[in-house]
Amino acid sequence: MRLKSALFASASLAFMLPGTARADEGMWTFDAFPAARMKAAYGWAPDQAWLDKTRAAAVRLTGGCSASFVSDTGLILTNHHCVATCVEENSTADNNILVKGFTARSMTEEKKCAGQQAEVVTSIRDVTPTVKAAIGSATGADAVRARNAATAKLESDSCTDKATTRCQVVSLYGGGQYKLYTYRKYSDVRLAWAPEAQAAQFGGDPDNFNFPRYSMDASFLRAYENGKPVATPAFLKWNPRAPQDGEATFVVGNPGSTSRLFTGDQLAFQRELALPIIVTTTSELRGRMIAAMAQSPERKREAAETLSGLENSLKVFIGRQKALNDPAFTGKLAAAEASLKQVSAGKPGIGIPWGDIARSVEANRAIYVERLYALPSGDLFNYALALVRVAAERGKPNGERLPGYTDSALPLLEKNLTDERPVTPWLDQLQMEFSLSKAREYLGADHPQSKLLLGRESPEALAARLVTGTKLADPAARKALLDGGAAAIAASTDPMIVYARSLDPNARALQKRYDAEVDAPLTAARARLADARFAVYGDSNYPDATFTLRISYGKVQGWNERGTPVPTRTVMGGTFDRATGAEPFDLPPAFAANQARINKNVTYDFVTTNDIIGGNSGSPVIDRAGTVIGAAFDGNIHSLGGNYGYDGTLNRTVVVSTAAVQEALEKIYPAPNLVAELRGRRR
Amino acid sequence: MRLKSALFASASLAFMLPGTARADEGMWTFDAFPAARMKAAYGWAPDQAWLDKTRAAAVRLTGGCSASFVSDTGLILTNHHCVATCVEENSTADNNILVKGFTARSMTEEKKCAGQQAEVVTSIRDVTPTVKAAIGSATGADAVRARNAATAKLESDSCTDKATTRCQVVSLYGGGQYKLYTYRKYSDVRLAWAPEAQAAQFGGDPDNFNFPRYSMDASFLRAYENGKPVATPAFLKWNPRAPQDGEATFVVGNPGSTSRLFTGDQLAFQRELALPIIVTTTSELRGRMIAAMAQSPERKREAAETLSGLENSLKVFIGRQKALNDPAFTGKLAAAEASLKQVSAGKPGIGIPWGDIARSVEANRAIYVERLYALPSGDLFNYALALVRVAAERGKPNGERLPGYTDSALPLLEKNLTDERPVTPWLDQLQMEFSLSKAREYLGADHPQSKLLLGRESPEALAARLVTGTKLADPAARKALLDGGAAAIAASTDPMIVYARSLDPNARALQKRYDAEVDAPLTAARARLADARFAVYGDSNYPDATFTLRISYGKVQGWNERGTPVPTRTVMGGTFDRATGAEPFDLPPAFAANQARINKNVTYDFVTTNDIIGGNSGSPVIDRAGTVIGAAFDGNIHSLGGNYGYDGTLNRTVVVSTAAVQEALEKIYPAPNLVAELRGRRR
Repeated sequence: MRLKSALFASASLAFMLPGTARADEGMWTFDAFPAARMKAAYGWAPDQAWLDKTRAAAVRLTGGCSASFVSDTGLILTNHHCVATCVEENSTADNNILVKGFTARSMTEEKKCAGQQAEVVTSIRDVTPTVKAAIGSATGADAVRARNAATAKLESDSCTDKATTRCQVVSLYGGGQYKLYTYRKYSDVRLAWAPEAQAAQFGGDPDNFNFPRYSMDASFLRAYENGKPVATPAFLKWNPRAPQDGEATFVVGNPGSTSRLFTGDQLAFQRELALPIIVTTTSELRGRMIAAMAQSPERKREAAETLSGLENSLKVFIGRQKALNDPAFTGKLAAAEASLKQVSAGKPGIGIPWGDIARSVEANRAIYVERLYALPSGDLFNYALALVRVAAERGKPNGERLPGYTDSALPLLEKNLTDERPVTPWLDQLQMEFSLSKAREYLGADHPQSKLLLGRESPEALAARLVTGTKLADPAARKALLDGGAAAIAASTDPMIVYARSLDPNARALQKRYDAEVDAPLTAARARLADARFAVYGDSNYPDATFTLRISYGKVQGWNERGTPVPTRTVMGGTFDRATGAEPFDLPPAFAANQARINKNVTYDFVTTNDIIGGNSGSPVIDRAGTVIGAAFDGNIHSLGGNYGYDGTLNRTVVVSTAAVQEALEKIYPAPNLVAELRGRRR
Repeated sequence: MRLKSALFASASLAFMLPGTARADEGMWTFDAFPAARMKAAYGWAPDQAWLDKTRAAAVRLTGGCSASFVSDTGLILTNHHCVATCVEENSTADNNILVKGFTARSMTEEKKCAGQQAEVVTSIRDVTPTVKAAIGSATGADAVRARNAATAKLESDSCTDKATTRCQVVSLYGGGQYKLYTYRKYSDVRLAWAPEAQAAQFGGDPDNFNFPRYSMDASFLRAYENGKPVATPAFLKWNPRAPQDGEATFVVGNPGSTSRLFTGDQLAFQRELALPIIVTTTSELRGRMIAAMAQSPERKREAAETLSGLENSLKVFIGRQKALNDPAFTGKLAAAEASLKQVSAGKPGIGIPWGDIARSVEANRAIYVERLYALPSGDLFNYALALVRVAAERGKPNGERLPGYTDSALPLLEKNLTDERPVTPWLDQLQMEFSLSKAREYLGADHPQSKLLLGRESPEALAARLVTGTKLADPAARKALLDGGAAAIAASTDPMIVYARSLDPNARALQKRYDAEVDAPLTAARARLADARFAVYGDSNYPDATFTLRISYGKVQGWNERGTPVPTRTVMGGTFDRATGAEPFDLPPAFAANQARINKNVTYDFVTTNDIIGGNSGSPVIDRAGTVIGAAFDGNIHSLGGNYGYDGTLNRTVVVSTAAVQEALEKIYPAPNLVAELRGRRR
């Protein structure tokens, strides 16, 4: 469960306030861990030292995942699927390390991961008064502008060292709180170890979000600086032991987004409008990719990870649609909302946020399809648009720029624009022509925006012309345009730049309209709703996920699937029973080759009650002693409804155990250096 | 709007009772035309002679369309999209008549359409007492068995001349009435004229179900018998004139199915379960086909019509999903249901059908996914399954056979099994591997049915093995197995036959469970609901569509699209303005070549308020004088919700005018013989 890719960002534009947490529910911020509640349930809870130590070892990966330091030399544990794009990009037809797996025999062999950055939170500061004061009594687009300007200034002022720090102001509780997160960042991240993709993805899409599971979804990265591994004295102790049924577990990571307390109107928007479009179009794209990849082994290799990410996202969206189409599920959410409304009625100072939210949702309905299809998909187009916008925005005062182009945001964007990474032209073209054809389908051929996007060309011909004609696959070309600024962009005849220039004004106008008609009133109403929730539920309240650091507590436990108990764990020997010989259930060759050596009884994957969501992938699973016993890599199928609500009887986190990873490091993909490093004995 | 293909038959398993008709709503049976009501609204209504004459000229095409005789020599007017598969199958790489169009210079050049049969209703008899008496007090699977046996006997006894007649018992009002339809059938149908596909499909999928429209969606077929054109003294007079705004129009054809009075529980089943799965999976198949077809012009030609049909179905399903996700739309349906419930409360003899329907829907939820994925898709598999079942069923008494394998149904099935028509192996393989992969996805890899379907093979490998290994593409091989009967089937080692044999028992068991738990209680409850409706609404009631002959009255009229009036008609000159040069808006070459000669002011397509649905494609649009002024080929986008309810302010039928067809026959695709024949002057 990666954080979903930018392709789908518009599917979930706003996040709401969770209700009062029960059982093991909750993605808690580190400054509000519910120690008393956990102690009541578990007889024990971590103290501040435990929390501080853990937090210091927790890593966010800008690719959309979580991770942790597991040695004092920058070694990072995460999931294979979080680094698979890096593995794919470092593969060639002759040396396909995605298929074969990869072990760096020494640090010098570790391979750079383009676009990847590791980040560790160093401080969290409440800046709510500053931001709210800046907004003041402004409304509409003015309110959004004021908020963005205040945010940009806070970030810029607080992170003067742009080489090693990153500052982000995060809106929690949908606008109820603003917090400034400061990160120590490591922008040189390299691949140290990866198993065969078939071992990580055994069971493929059919098994994704299912359990029992037999997946080695683990990899190791390493953070570098100035060409050398970084020193990371704060790390989690590696503990390759089997989990105990019922023992307490903590998941520390960065859940991407949840919508736990969307109001009924917001849920209806998702169920009636957004999800049907996203599920339908993503399915078609999936079909196009599968058939296009079937044409050659080369294509299959080049697009495997993109398809896998797409199928993961699709399963997420289908799971959400199913949850919102389940009256029993939505009934509970509606009852909770009704109860809050009733208790809040007449409370001073709260007002009636629900009506304002409903009106902003109505405004969003009117603009949704246009925003969704304002711009085509594809890496090359995204490069072009970012270059066009960087050139325009850099010339403005920091506080007046588009979010994502402020001083604090530019370094990562510039890294992404200039990092060398392969572009797959046929795939880019496929994505682009697909998105253009959907724009025409959903807007209608006669809509002005369809005409703006297509002119008199077909989606196929336009995408072919732009992808064939552009030079933006070359990082040097991108760097020249980035460095050349507005003059270079204005003078460029690169067809993709010309195209991005032609679409940008309309996309900006739509964003402005969205800010004024949706974002501003929604944020204001959500802040009032947050007040209402705090008034009623106090601190049994936690903010919706925002891809910032959270901690969840829970325990090792199976569940009951329509009358049948699902076991807590699998063992490695199960892989051999489940393998059919047919993709995606074919045995990874290294498993087959080492079958006799592998201890069949080692715990492979296991489930816990921890409350996680996409973005938590790679999160360390930590025991009471603060040692790491696994890496969370998935949720079960019920966890997909977890976007809207957590059900402790059904929602489960799926974890690959450190015991299994250790077995792999010793017997399947031998990495003696790593084994020694994890033991704390450098060789 | 073709009747949707068999692929989707399971998406709409049961049809409900329409409410009381208002405005121009209604798909009326010929024995219950609401003359008084029409007269009140229009000041005129057809008399019995008019109705009889019209009915005698109306044609049903077994491919899933409607049509009419327009000469005394068996000439049939229908839509191009209704014959496109025939045109495609008669095309070769060297002579692609789908692209170029086709004009038979004389009757000897007319081309056979495999699998197509033309049928004219000759009598309709009420057999309700016979069928209901046969069911008696039976319930569950026994009730279904008794009903099927009675139906088989009625059909067999009434159509002893199997060469020229066909009998079908149709359940109207979901089991409230049973009527025996007798048809004169013509099983040799040939293509006489077709325009370029690009003229028929101008605007392609983007324009489908939209208006204004510029489509020459018309073709001519001819019915043959004993190698000669049949005499058809009852035909509609061809009238190549422009329609008048507001004039009364009749559409006479075979609407395929509607669900106008599904109860709230049945609508919820569609909205929450069935439609999301169908839309999602159809979208993926669409994507797979688009990408697979992009590989070569040959593939594009071979699959063009399959894709076009699929996209048409998908748009229908998306439209239904949208309608059911529109609270304003469903609110009206709910209000109508509440009102009927209230009025019916306590009426003697009606009971409470709603609860029984809700329970049968619950039972259907439990079995739906298994039934949907009991069998894979693909022509070759369908041949195999039909052969396996014919062999098994022919040995049983007529009354004990599966529906579709009775004496009255076998002749058409045997024709379809033995007609020579090309199979496209790559497309068959694509469909098969797709459906198998979806079976595994929706059932889960560990479901027994997944294991039955796949064994230890992957969907891809299994489909490749079966499609490559089978001989069933050869009509002679099919005929040998058909003639060889049970012994030949049992002895066959054809891998597709072996596979079909292995899946048949499970599919039959599921059907039996469905009969017992869903069909029987639902039919009984629907019959009671029909009684309730008749008690309250009398004969302002019409049965849901059943792909049997209906007549709709309405008028030539545009509509108002979110404040903008949509005109009633387009003119042929508009094609040249709308053409962009880029597919699917590229000008048909013959239009370009004859631009100077074409009268730009001829009415091209127009809209009427007639109430139609898929299956009505090709229906003659008839004026008060009983002459044909167009062929219905589509509905507007609002008509997609027409499956559940008709809204006279928005729902429109889209028609290609006879004036435009005449212009094409004279100036674009010259067919002087046809022009003379349509004028009644044979040359």
